[in-house]
Amino acid sequence: MNTSRIEAFSDGVIAIIITIMVLELKVPRGADLSALVPMIPPFMGYVLSFIYVGIYWNNHHHLLHTTKQVSGSILWANLNLLFWLSMFPLVTNWVGENHAASVPTACYGVVLMLAALAYWLLQRMIIAMQGPQSLLRRAVGHDWKGKFSPALYLLVALLWFIPDRRIEHVLLKP
Amino acid sequence: MNTSRIEAFSDGVIAIIITIMVLELKVPRGADLSALVPMIPPFMGYVLSFIYVGIYWNNHHHLLHTTKQVSGSILWANLNLLFWLSMFPLVTNWVGENHAASVPTACYGVVLMLAALAYWLLQRMIIAMQGPQSLLRRAVGHDWKGKFSPALYLLVALLWFIPDRRIEHVLLKP
Amino acid sequence: MNTSRIEAFSDGVIAIIITIMVLELKVPRGADLSALVPMIPPFMGYVLSFIYVGIYWNNHHHLLHTTKQVSGSILWANLNLLFWLSMFPLVTNWVGENHAASVPTACYGVVLMLAALAYWLLQRMIIAMQGPQSLLRRAVGHDWKGKFSPALYLLVALLWFIPDRRIEHVLLKP
Amino acid sequence: MNTSRIEAFSDGVIAIIITIMVLELKVPRGADLSALVPMIPPFMGYVLSFIYVGIYWNNHHHLLHTTKQVSGSILWANLNLLFWLSMFPLVTNWVGENHAASVPTACYGVVLMLAALAYWLLQRMIIAMQGPQSLLRRAVGHDWKGKFSPALYLLVALLWFIPDRRIEHVLLKP
Repeated sequence: MNTSRIEAFSDGVIAIIITIMVLELKVPRGADLSALVPMIPPFMGYVLSFIYVGIYWNNHHHLLHTTKQVSGSILWANLNLLFWLSMFPLVTNWVGENHAASVPTACYGVVLMLAALAYWLLQRMIIAMQGPQSLLRRAVGHDWKGKFSPALYLLVALLWFIPDRRIEHVLLKP
Repeated sequence: MNTSRIEAFSDGVIAIIITIMVLELKVPRGADLSALVPMIPPFMGYVLSFIYVGIYWNNHHHLLHTTKQVSGSILWANLNLLFWLSMFPLVTNWVGENHAASVPTACYGVVLMLAALAYWLLQRMIIAMQGPQSLLRRAVGHDWKGKFSPALYLLVALLWFIPDRRIEHVLLKP
Repeated sequence: MNTSRIEAFSDGVIAIIITIMVLELKVPRGADLSALVPMIPPFMGYVLSFIYVGIYWNNHHHLLHTTKQVSGSILWANLNLLFWLSMFPLVTNWVGENHAASVPTACYGVVLMLAALAYWLLQRMIIAMQGPQSLLRRAVGHDWKGKFSPALYLLVALLWFIPDRRIEHVLLKP
Repeated sequence: MNTSRIEAFSDGVIAIIITIMVLELKVPRGADLSALVPMIPPFMGYVLSFIYVGIYWNNHHHLLHTTKQVSGSILWANLNLLFWLSMFPLVTNWVGENHAASVPTACYGVVLMLAALAYWLLQRMIIAMQGPQSLLRRAVGHDWKGKFSPALYLLVALLWFIPDRRIEHVLLKP
């Protein structure tokens, strides 16, 4: 199997993910400006997730661009990545409905982290298949950024699981 | 990155946007002809948005046809355009549920304007990358149409924000 | 613009239409066999629409296969066809919720007819662009089938608009 | 018609099926950890269906890879397969809402079985068209796996239709 197939399928899935997130934005109740106020948190969540998915789509293609062939394990590593990306609309919506709540925000962080891990795993498998002269390996190098991001997401997720009443207090002040 | 990837992804996103708008058309309540009457405003809104998205799809491809290469900034300018196009189903539905209401119609105008601005920005970036011999620059020329439309949309949006009771009065007359 | 673009976009839209129809099939209430009984009419409607959209997808590609170039008018004739196909999920669902009701069935017939007309129009425009040596013209010939189907759909739609109490009487008998 | 068209269309439909299943995962009610508990059964159902659809997508491409040409009967056999795959989100959701209920689980088994049969039928038609020197026939061989799976799914479906109170008793124990 060559990469064009896996790219076309991934493109389709990512295009759908990025678009169905907007379905979660419910039509405002009422027809005046004040009806837009409760739209702000879910809208900001949509913007953030749109950017995240956009970044993944961008990187995903640079990743697949370096390889010519696809093995069964790469295929499943890719499906694993798509699975976690497909969780974005759900957690985005959950955070949007419960802004400043710790559990939804932590779950959002966990999904981000698992997507980052899935991406890193896919990268490892492509490097493994390409062997010691791997083009991707040289491009990626020691990949501090790739190893660092999942750890950072984990830290953020943990931060949100630990209730910090001071922050909440400050946030809720007018 | 060449243009075929960005075209395929944009095609996917636009195909989904144009199709999910129809999901907002709820099945009529009842099974007689009178059940079709409340369907008319959302149906007309769907027709209008279908035409708008169709125009964007058409122009988008002529735009990308003039360039061979895609930079990171073009990619994000394109995602910005897709973002505003993805807002069409939401504002279409809001206008459809509140016909002749000023705030939803103004928001519709704002989204149209931001999509037009995003399109114009994408066009500028392709011209900038192509340099002084830009094929697109010559095709576009001074581009009065492109500069004029966002301004016009803004005007329409402002018109709808300013309540004009006389128009409302005329519209509500039998 | 060559045909590959319009084919890819139409493929995307038709793939979405054929798939979102299934979203209208609501999960049965309850977990026993009797919960499946009210599913039968919408399920049959889904099967019928799936076949219709499948036929259109099949014919659409044979149609575009005969042409190499696409003009602006062909593009809009194609969008017109996609528009009426996008109405299939809605009317399918309406018929499914109100089986044996005349108005929803007539509307279903009207949408089928308008889709058939849109297809015939697209065919005419491709023939017109190809000129007197048109490959499609010879393949289609006098096209009795193409001209006959919209008329037949119209007849069926009219039949359903005229209430026939005898048929209803027979249908409602146990 | 060559295979690239049917592959692109199938890719689109499968990409949509795999993604819309996530729409069935409703946002948890509440914002604490206990709100995640009722999410576990539908989430596990989503994971399972994601894997099933992933397997079909993988096999589907290996299948179409062996053939160069597509006949009308192959096209319809493929649409038949896509039809049963499109039923996955619905039965997944039904099982997810009624875990350990026998009828939904049996229906899930029936849909899996009909999808497996549709796949086997598509395979037979490609072999038939390729004639005695069929590349696919040699690759598939006697295909015990292909013949066995539908029978196994049927068995599982039957097992779930026959109420086994002992199992239910054990499952419902804390």
